[in-house]
Amino acid sequence: MKGDLDFVREQQKEIIVLGQANALLSWDQETYMCSGGIDARAMQSSLLSRLAHERMTDAKLFAAVNRLLDSGRLKGDDKIMIEKLHKYILRSRKIPKEHVEAMSHAVMMSGPAWRDARRKQDWKIFEPHLKKIIDLKIAQAKYIGLSGHLYNSLLDEFEDGMTAEQLKPIFERLKFELVELLKKIEGSANYKKQRRVMSVGKFSETEQRKFVDGVARRIGLGEKNSRIDLSEHPFTTKIGYGDVRITTAFRRDLLFSFGSTVHESGHALYELGMPKNHQYDVLGDSPSLGLHESQSRFWENMIGKSRSFWKFYFPRFKKAYNLKGDFEKWYREVNFVEPGFIRIESDEVHYCLHVILRFEIEMGLIDGTISVRDLPTVWNAKMKELFGFVPSSIVDGALQDVHWSMGSVGYFPTYAIGTMYAAQLYGALAAEYSGLDKAISKGKFDKIGVWLQDRIHKHGSKYLADEVIRRVCGKGLDPSVYVKYLNEKFGKIYGF
Amino acid sequence: MKGDLDFVREQQKEIIVLGQANALLSWDQETYMCSGGIDARAMQSSLLSRLAHERMTDAKLFAAVNRLLDSGRLKGDDKIMIEKLHKYILRSRKIPKEHVEAMSHAVMMSGPAWRDARRKQDWKIFEPHLKKIIDLKIAQAKYIGLSGHLYNSLLDEFEDGMTAEQLKPIFERLKFELVELLKKIEGSANYKKQRRVMSVGKFSETEQRKFVDGVARRIGLGEKNSRIDLSEHPFTTKIGYGDVRITTAFRRDLLFSFGSTVHESGHALYELGMPKNHQYDVLGDSPSLGLHESQSRFWENMIGKSRSFWKFYFPRFKKAYNLKGDFEKWYREVNFVEPGFIRIESDEVHYCLHVILRFEIEMGLIDGTISVRDLPTVWNAKMKELFGFVPSSIVDGALQDVHWSMGSVGYFPTYAIGTMYAAQLYGALAAEYSGLDKAISKGKFDKIGVWLQDRIHKHGSKYLADEVIRRVCGKGLDPSVYVKYLNEKFGKIYGF
Repeated sequence: MKGDLDFVREQQKEIIVLGQANALLSWDQETYMCSGGIDARAMQSSLLSRLAHERMTDAKLFAAVNRLLDSGRLKGDDKIMIEKLHKYILRSRKIPKEHVEAMSHAVMMSGPAWRDARRKQDWKIFEPHLKKIIDLKIAQAKYIGLSGHLYNSLLDEFEDGMTAEQLKPIFERLKFELVELLKKIEGSANYKKQRRVMSVGKFSETEQRKFVDGVARRIGLGEKNSRIDLSEHPFTTKIGYGDVRITTAFRRDLLFSFGSTVHESGHALYELGMPKNHQYDVLGDSPSLGLHESQSRFWENMIGKSRSFWKFYFPRFKKAYNLKGDFEKWYREVNFVEPGFIRIESDEVHYCLHVILRFEIEMGLIDGTISVRDLPTVWNAKMKELFGFVPSSIVDGALQDVHWSMGSVGYFPTYAIGTMYAAQLYGALAAEYSGLDKAISKGKFDKIGVWLQDRIHKHGSKYLADEVIRRVCGKGLDPSVYVKYLNEKFGKIYGF
Repeated sequence: MKGDLDFVREQQKEIIVLGQANALLSWDQETYMCSGGIDARAMQSSLLSRLAHERMTDAKLFAAVNRLLDSGRLKGDDKIMIEKLHKYILRSRKIPKEHVEAMSHAVMMSGPAWRDARRKQDWKIFEPHLKKIIDLKIAQAKYIGLSGHLYNSLLDEFEDGMTAEQLKPIFERLKFELVELLKKIEGSANYKKQRRVMSVGKFSETEQRKFVDGVARRIGLGEKNSRIDLSEHPFTTKIGYGDVRITTAFRRDLLFSFGSTVHESGHALYELGMPKNHQYDVLGDSPSLGLHESQSRFWENMIGKSRSFWKFYFPRFKKAYNLKGDFEKWYREVNFVEPGFIRIESDEVHYCLHVILRFEIEMGLIDGTISVRDLPTVWNAKMKELFGFVPSSIVDGALQDVHWSMGSVGYFPTYAIGTMYAAQLYGALAAEYSGLDKAISKGKFDKIGVWLQDRIHKHGSKYLADEVIRRVCGKGLDPSVYVKYLNEKFGKIYGF
């Protein structure tokens, strides 16, 4: 057994280290790479991906893992680790090599087509590529073959253990509540007179950079283990244990660079809090993207859009940017609720509606009730139903997100899951930490960081996401906490 | 044969692509990596190195290459490529795996010891590590077993085709001439009254950055295919075809960032000029480090320290930095000859003496006539002989360079070889290009770039370095051109 375990550890380590080198290739591509290096970069990334995939599906590794499981002698973390690895290997091995290559080719062709379709506002350019990807995704789901809805086999890749059956009623409930809440907000007097004036315009990038650095440090990202660079879209990546990087961007919205940094810092803090002794095995990672997103949303929404938080930061912003207006005005701008076409620019109330729209479309694409050809029409119909209006351009509609062109189907729900988890976590923290509001209003976040590390980060992927949340909050995914939080918060802001 | 050739091409490509990914890991380590990422980085680099080495020494590759050679049907570039690859494979296969691991371990331990020894100015800390490395290098040379001096087997790794027997008389001649020239310089009235005042102090880094960017663009590095970052020591690295990066650093010497950029731009221009159709085989690389250095030295010395060059740049420098003094004074400062302990800060006249000192020591270490224990004493004796003085600290003496701690023995000569080649190339260019001086004085370097590309870069490693130079200059490595150039240039400056 010892020999098999050592072998499995070595193989896992190689797969993870190849992934880390590949993460650097991606990070560099988004930050510093010369544009002329793109062809070579594609070659480099695809080689490292292939080498990792070959190792993951290697028959010797599979045999060793099976022997270990059959031995019945595995205990503790080793047992969990081998079981988890076994699941991942099975998933990889179920998909034929030709399918992997076909998908990788389809994705390669699809990216430029998506960009071209956006430029020309023409769905027809993207349609055949998305059709190909959806067909491959359906085939993939069949290869994987989890029980229940076909979509489960895709969702599972991002949200281990979650099913469409579990999600659907939660999303239905959430959708109903959000639409109800929006009616109240939109019917309020405050809503009718609201205007955004303080947070848009041209603001010093030097000052923004200082705030970005400062807030990341306060949240707990040290200089030794993290850095912040610029990229078109903000993201977080772990290059290796002790080397986690986030990016941001400066836009006309003053809150963009700051808010995105608070968000990405949450992701980064999670990565930095993973168990070091599992850095080279499957337990040293998050169990799901939803749980990962709970960490970023926790900081971005629950902390970063709170009154307490801005009690600390508003005077500093006001001074640095010479803002005209008082705290209440600013706090309302931070939490401005307004309908919009764009998911990533959305406020807390609208956000999950964007996600649910995509979830419903993905479900339909996979079970065949929605065709790729009809997708723009379906998109607009759902926008009308949920938001009450239709995007003026397909660029803001069915061509909005990059995810599908990258072959990511089943990914979107994790955004809403994380958002709901975040509210649940905040509730649990607030119940335990009586001085929470006061600490936040003094810009002191260290105890929050310690709490998150102890309740979430340190477990790595030892438990499934829902189990982690259950252990901390007494209950798994539960929309009611988020709904309650939104109603209370926006009830006060909009006065109903 | 077709099947073997395809297989060999695929394998070569993987080796090269793995090397490129590894180049990015190194570049990042020197520029942006979080310090906390160092352990993970060591793991990443060593995995990619091992995967490349496994492929290089793979029995199937060796067999395919041998079959291709035996077939007698290879032609043109394919023939040269396979023969060269065969040589590289043979060299790799001659060294046992255990030796490679022992060397990699010795180097890993040696770096921190070298830095610690420098901090504490204590040779004893580094001595056992260097002893280990030298013993391994002697073993390595024996495994490789080229004819002639044992040193040839080490030199060959960096300077394919060059031998100690060829180099020794050239270096003897050069040493004699340089010492003679130094006597004349040091005896001159100009030397006695010289002082460096214009180029040292505190200068705006923003302005320096502008000059650095500007001169790299003029030399021919486009934004699409190159970038300039900061690192402790300047270097050039190719991440992939069309993605070449250089670094610089800002120091008290105003000429440091500028001169190092001119130097590294020469390296980068060479990499960018390599034949694209050989980007994934051994012909798409330089045949030797000496030829590579000829390109950097060409720009740094022959162009970047010339009167014509400063006719263009001095007025700009004067204005940007508010310099006090005239052109003649500045030109003399650019070409200031002064004894110093540090190789990389050395002027054109002293530079090769530093190299020859190291070459003589390396030869002695490898043939056993110099012991690692006595190295500091030997170093100082040779300094006394060549320079007339002894470094006050071992940090400026035997502990000066990082190379030996990295296991690079046989590398130093390439610096002097490149320096001599550069002078030969400049002679050939000047003979062909009548408007050369005028173009340089107008900051116009495009024709120079085209000439270098046509005469040097485009060949990749199709010919050995000395053959490339012979084809352009009518003669291989020849110290007399460099000696003549130095005598004429410094005769004018120092007035003899």
